[in-house]
Amino acid sequence: MMSPMTPPMTPKGFYFSALCAGIKKKKRKDIGLIVSNPPSAAAALFTTNRIKAAPVIISQKHVKAAKKHAAIVCNSGCANAATGERGFSDAIKTAQLVATELECDPHEVLVASTGVIGEFLPMEKIKAAVPKLTASLRADPDGYARAIMTTDTRPKTAYRHIIIKGKKVTVWGCAKGAGMIHPDMATMLAFLLTDAAVSKNLLKTALKDASAKTFNTITIDGDTSTNDAVLLLANGAAGNGQLKKSSKEFAAFCKALTEICASLAEQIVADGEGATTIAEIKVEKAKNEKEAVAVARAISGSLLVKTALNGRDPNWGRIICAAGYSGVPVDENKMELYFGKHPAFIKGAPAKTPEKKLAAEMKKEKVEITLVLNRGRASASCLFCDISKDYVSINADYRS
Amino acid sequence: MMSPMTPPMTPKGFYFSALCAGIKKKKRKDIGLIVSNPPSAAAALFTTNRIKAAPVIISQKHVKAAKKHAAIVCNSGCANAATGERGFSDAIKTAQLVATELECDPHEVLVASTGVIGEFLPMEKIKAAVPKLTASLRADPDGYARAIMTTDTRPKTAYRHIIIKGKKVTVWGCAKGAGMIHPDMATMLAFLLTDAAVSKNLLKTALKDASAKTFNTITIDGDTSTNDAVLLLANGAAGNGQLKKSSKEFAAFCKALTEICASLAEQIVADGEGATTIAEIKVEKAKNEKEAVAVARAISGSLLVKTALNGRDPNWGRIICAAGYSGVPVDENKMELYFGKHPAFIKGAPAKTPEKKLAAEMKKEKVEITLVLNRGRASASCLFCDISKDYVSINADYRS
Repeated sequence: MMSPMTPPMTPKGFYFSALCAGIKKKKRKDIGLIVSNPPSAAAALFTTNRIKAAPVIISQKHVKAAKKHAAIVCNSGCANAATGERGFSDAIKTAQLVATELECDPHEVLVASTGVIGEFLPMEKIKAAVPKLTASLRADPDGYARAIMTTDTRPKTAYRHIIIKGKKVTVWGCAKGAGMIHPDMATMLAFLLTDAAVSKNLLKTALKDASAKTFNTITIDGDTSTNDAVLLLANGAAGNGQLKKSSKEFAAFCKALTEICASLAEQIVADGEGATTIAEIKVEKAKNEKEAVAVARAISGSLLVKTALNGRDPNWGRIICAAGYSGVPVDENKMELYFGKHPAFIKGAPAKTPEKKLAAEMKKEKVEITLVLNRGRASASCLFCDISKDYVSINADYRS
Repeated sequence: MMSPMTPPMTPKGFYFSALCAGIKKKKRKDIGLIVSNPPSAAAALFTTNRIKAAPVIISQKHVKAAKKHAAIVCNSGCANAATGERGFSDAIKTAQLVATELECDPHEVLVASTGVIGEFLPMEKIKAAVPKLTASLRADPDGYARAIMTTDTRPKTAYRHIIIKGKKVTVWGCAKGAGMIHPDMATMLAFLLTDAAVSKNLLKTALKDASAKTFNTITIDGDTSTNDAVLLLANGAAGNGQLKKSSKEFAAFCKALTEICASLAEQIVADGEGATTIAEIKVEKAKNEKEAVAVARAISGSLLVKTALNGRDPNWGRIICAAGYSGVPVDENKMELYFGKHPAFIKGAPAKTPEKKLAAEMKKEKVEITLVLNRGRASASCLFCDISKDYVSINADYRS
């Protein structure tokens, strides 16, 4: 599902541009624009952090205030978070600058920022960049996908084509995120675009469901950011006719959207700051989903589990230990732990699997760990990466 | 308060021994014995992890089952956790071996283990070691303080002398812990000894209070271990007469005990795996203590805050961000953040303190960070260390 960045992969009626405005310290693309023509219905999810960046609050307002949206403008290099009144006015101003060029209402423009918290947006640079962005719109999203990157080492995109009522419908997405990644929200920026015709209400349903299964099941470092936003635009340019609730067409759309989100989520974890490998922890036979999620998150959040993963060390005691402090009343005498299909711990005692076999599982491209609680029928999983020395370097030095 | 390890610092009537039994892979002291003669009243606190090591469960039982305790036996190199029935019987057997040598009831012996989770105790080695331990008891605790170490780089001890009713009373403690350190319990082993005469009930009160203010306010890596135990023995050998509740003598004892615990807690953080510096986050003017603790823990638990600390980078946005996801409804427009006395963020906007001044605060021996929520009158603080590349090395490779 990892998509080569060729223009036909993007939905009809979406145009992209990006450039280096000088917001990042290094000379790299740091501002990008997506324009939807015709304008789109929009759905959005934002960080649950109480300290929300100005663009998060402004985009929340704009999604409510307008029926259709013409554009998304996103900068990297500065989060415009913890910037008070001036931050709000800068975010509003950015939307206005784009709206003036596109001759639309400012509420039809959504804004997003990512980068260092606590610095003001360099508005002169943004003012200079906006007309250049609107003048250079193209169908190729590659520059945009790169302009939103911070510590990401590569752009992250995914797409799906589906046929709805004889029309080819495309769902495309791009995301950034490599650090400060944790549910909820999945602590990143994601931009999802489709040329399907979908109402605002149905879009919201589809986005919530897809995110719950994907972006909200990944963690890199346990920090939920101030700037997370997932924006979904649907412009109807495919000509498929409005999707109806409970229809098989809507189900097909939701499936495609979830697959895109799953791919982006996995790409984010695989590109985790300093990450050398990824792992999935599946928690099975929990009493309920909440319990399963709590155990999966405790394990995937444990620094000791993540560093053992870095060393490819099947030090399963750390997994059992993290389950024990998850807040769920797990019982070690009922628990079973597997690396791949090999048992490591069965109902209160170490299994007799040779360490070599467990170690081999740790060296696979994606490490699969299953913890069976034997308390009920619910399950949950979480995708995570290791924490390496490079993670420390990146974050001890990082102020991009 | 850091004590040189000279014998007069320990309370009367306590004797120590330690040796290398071959439990650790490297040839280092790995088993130690403390004997109390006369026997002691005891209080204990244990990990809140649902997966409790066998020695934790056995010591819990023994503290309840006996009025007085004659000994503590502790091994490093193997946690005897997640070891099922055989683990329990090994822990019981260890207590029995010591009891046989000391000619006391096995319930009068407390046991503790620390090291890798999921491996069985090498009982033949322990059986061979116990008679040597009882034959080599001395007043010098240095060997014991070293035998309980795992990734610790140095032994941790503290003592206080106080005068109660004309008698010199000593409170002494030693602790181990460098990783898997997080409230609650403070994820470590601590052994506190006094020659004061204190009832079992009062000891429990004193220990709970002292731990809440000290061991439960530190974190290194956010992992609460399976083996944490704080054991407090009081043998009355000082001849001070039984301490009474609400007396000024009991208050003086509690103060000394809290100071010992505070010193050990700080020594643990300072010796955090790979740590290069320590920091204290004070959260002030919270609505209530629970709130203050939640914010202090979110900040001290943030991997991004810890790596910024490693880089001595006053990247205060990460602190504000962590407060935002603490679960407390903080309001950035009321918040004030200080590094030392220098404001970094005041009520919704970055302060004008030059970055150089904030950076200088990050280079102090102990970094002092204060976050004022302006929501009420409660406060809490948390002591933590940085996460360095060495932390990753130690834990990616560690299976001592």
